[in-house]
Amino acid sequence: RSYSIAVIPGDGIGKEVMPEGMRVLEKAASIFGFEIEQKWHDFACCDYYARHGKMMPDNWKEEIGRPDAIFFGAVGWPDTVPDHVSLWGSLLQFRREYDQYVNLRPVRLMPGVPCPLAGREPGDIDFWVVRENTEGEYSSVGGIMFPNTDREVVIQETVMTRIGVDRVLRYAFDLAQKRERKHLTSATKSNGIAITMPYWDQRVEAIGAEYPDVSHDKYHIDILTAQFVLNPDRFDVVVGSNLFGDILSDLGPACTGTIGVAPSGNINPEGIHPSLFEPVHGSAPDIAGQGIANPVGQIWSAAMMLEHLGEAEAAAAIMRAVEQVLATPSARTRDLKGAASTDACGKAIAEALG
Amino acid sequence: RSYSIAVIPGDGIGKEVMPEGMRVLEKAASIFGFEIEQKWHDFACCDYYARHGKMMPDNWKEEIGRPDAIFFGAVGWPDTVPDHVSLWGSLLQFRREYDQYVNLRPVRLMPGVPCPLAGREPGDIDFWVVRENTEGEYSSVGGIMFPNTDREVVIQETVMTRIGVDRVLRYAFDLAQKRERKHLTSATKSNGIAITMPYWDQRVEAIGAEYPDVSHDKYHIDILTAQFVLNPDRFDVVVGSNLFGDILSDLGPACTGTIGVAPSGNINPEGIHPSLFEPVHGSAPDIAGQGIANPVGQIWSAAMMLEHLGEAEAAAAIMRAVEQVLATPSARTRDLKGAASTDACGKAIAEALG
Ligand SMILES: CC(C)[C@H](C(=O)O)[C@@H](O)C(=O)O
Ligand SMILES: CC(C)[C@H](C(=O)O)[C@@H](O)C(=O)O
Repeated sequence: RSYSIAVIPGDGIGKEVMPEGMRVLEKAASIFGFEIEQKWHDFACCDYYARHGKMMPDNWKEEIGRPDAIFFGAVGWPDTVPDHVSLWGSLLQFRREYDQYVNLRPVRLMPGVPCPLAGREPGDIDFWVVRENTEGEYSSVGGIMFPNTDREVVIQETVMTRIGVDRVLRYAFDLAQKRERKHLTSATKSNGIAITMPYWDQRVEAIGAEYPDVSHDKYHIDILTAQFVLNPDRFDVVVGSNLFGDILSDLGPACTGTIGVAPSGNINPEGIHPSLFEPVHGSAPDIAGQGIANPVGQIWSAAMMLEHLGEAEAAAAIMRAVEQVLATPSARTRDLKGAASTDACGKAIAEALG
Repeated sequence: RSYSIAVIPGDGIGKEVMPEGMRVLEKAASIFGFEIEQKWHDFACCDYYARHGKMMPDNWKEEIGRPDAIFFGAVGWPDTVPDHVSLWGSLLQFRREYDQYVNLRPVRLMPGVPCPLAGREPGDIDFWVVRENTEGEYSSVGGIMFPNTDREVVIQETVMTRIGVDRVLRYAFDLAQKRERKHLTSATKSNGIAITMPYWDQRVEAIGAEYPDVSHDKYHIDILTAQFVLNPDRFDVVVGSNLFGDILSDLGPACTGTIGVAPSGNINPEGIHPSLFEPVHGSAPDIAGQGIANPVGQIWSAAMMLEHLGEAEAAAAIMRAVEQVLATPSARTRDLKGAASTDACGKAIAEALG
């Protein structure tokens, strides 16, 4: 078995954690008997953009080719490139152009990661956030009327489609069906956002009817964020629109203390286009260049990528190695009250792998 | 001094906590020497709507008249009236028609209220959320194309205006200026929501320039919700759009354990229209009718209302009475691990008042 991987480390700490992700990936390949063909790309603010004034060449799809997956670090360098330019020029473009309509993130209490919630232990919290990843509130449709006057009116359209909503709901219900509790929670705001959100609720009912063995409920997003803090053990699979999923998939890892180590998959479930795997954290300009970034998010993303590629055994082995290292104070990075450097932590995980 | 108050208890526990709010209000009036003229209205799902099929009469503005303030319980009874109907027919209509463009909520760790965050003590967390309350994401502009087909497209427009954004930002900067830390945090999502949110950021910069003595920063809403959990002591005044403010002003009280007791003001700062004060909690059909609802949110809202009416001393006295009762296990309601009924808790607060 051989997998072609497009590697895009990006900016800031993306460049520091990516080598550790690759280290562990290659080690897993040698142990489990598959091959990784890698092609690196410098699509980042501080590389390609600095030279060409755009995030990627116009023929970026050709450059990337048809890899089995994309392994992504973090993009963004607000001092030189505004965030909406860098993100719409790379990450958000991949999500749309490769129709990665599912954004998938685990919310899991891990050993060795201090939990900001009182009285919670590893095992207590373990759910997935499924986020619609291509449409909804993240649209570029709209504009400004009477610009630069007191009458200025700014409009942005949220656009949901039957196709877009139904397919991500089916993915979420499928996932819930495979789990023990078989429960799905939908994020809504149909009491305030009076057109798209009642529609979302309707489609949840319609698709839910196809899954009689999966129970489901819904919460308005405001009280749902409160429930993440108050009763995080209540959730199994949580599904939300692009914006609501974005919020919940940062808040969830924050509630488990894992925001610095959480991974994510941007998935095209049909496999027509490559899926993209990236840590939840960003490029973190404030700590970039110091060799102190935590590589676990990148490495956990490698595990998600392998799972997606069908290498479930290797993925599980990486997760065991990650848990073992997180439970070892001396192998942890500074954010987890250890003193290990980025590469020392990465090496420890590669070693623990076997 | 005499104040005319329109009293709208609403549905469910709204009806149970409102008498306690009025009890404490009247006690404060007798102690501090002012008068309350009250006019009650039955604008609720289970009252007016049940008889007339709408939340309020067409001439509701005449019925309400020109009170000095509106004291509101909670509206909603989803078994008989869909939430978007009941809310757009009352609460959300008041906010717009009375131009209550500021929604103001405290986030404060209170004695006797268990905090879900680890290691936080009363005093550690104390900030305000200022929410834009009339425009933005809560619009009814939009519609459905190709309904009931696979091609269905649903569009909802977020509408921001220069007038609407600037005035709530000024309110928030004014508030920050009066506080010790003089710091304002703006909630944004300009890296994903590419038209309205960069505009919001721009206006924060423009208005911020008028307040050289107030420092300000911004966070994207996803990471801001995470920061509420991880570093709630960092905030002083947080300002957000209608949706972001809605989320943050539920999440904030959840992080301090006060979601069942937090108050809110829907404020027309110029006083051209009446302002409305209500607890953060809803009508809670699941516990309605049992006499166990916590009246503190309604009573704390009375304190906010008095502060707004210029009775700062009475407001402060109510808050001292609330804190004293919250610190007394036997006077607390069941949600706070006490056994007091709604009216026993209300009476205890009225007594503590003097
Ligand atoms: C009930 C609902 C429409 C309302 C809102 O979203 O504004 C509520 O959540 C609030 O915050 O007052
Ligand atoms: C960087 C930003 C545009 C992005 C998003 O909002 O999608 C990020 O927050 C994420 O969740 O991947």
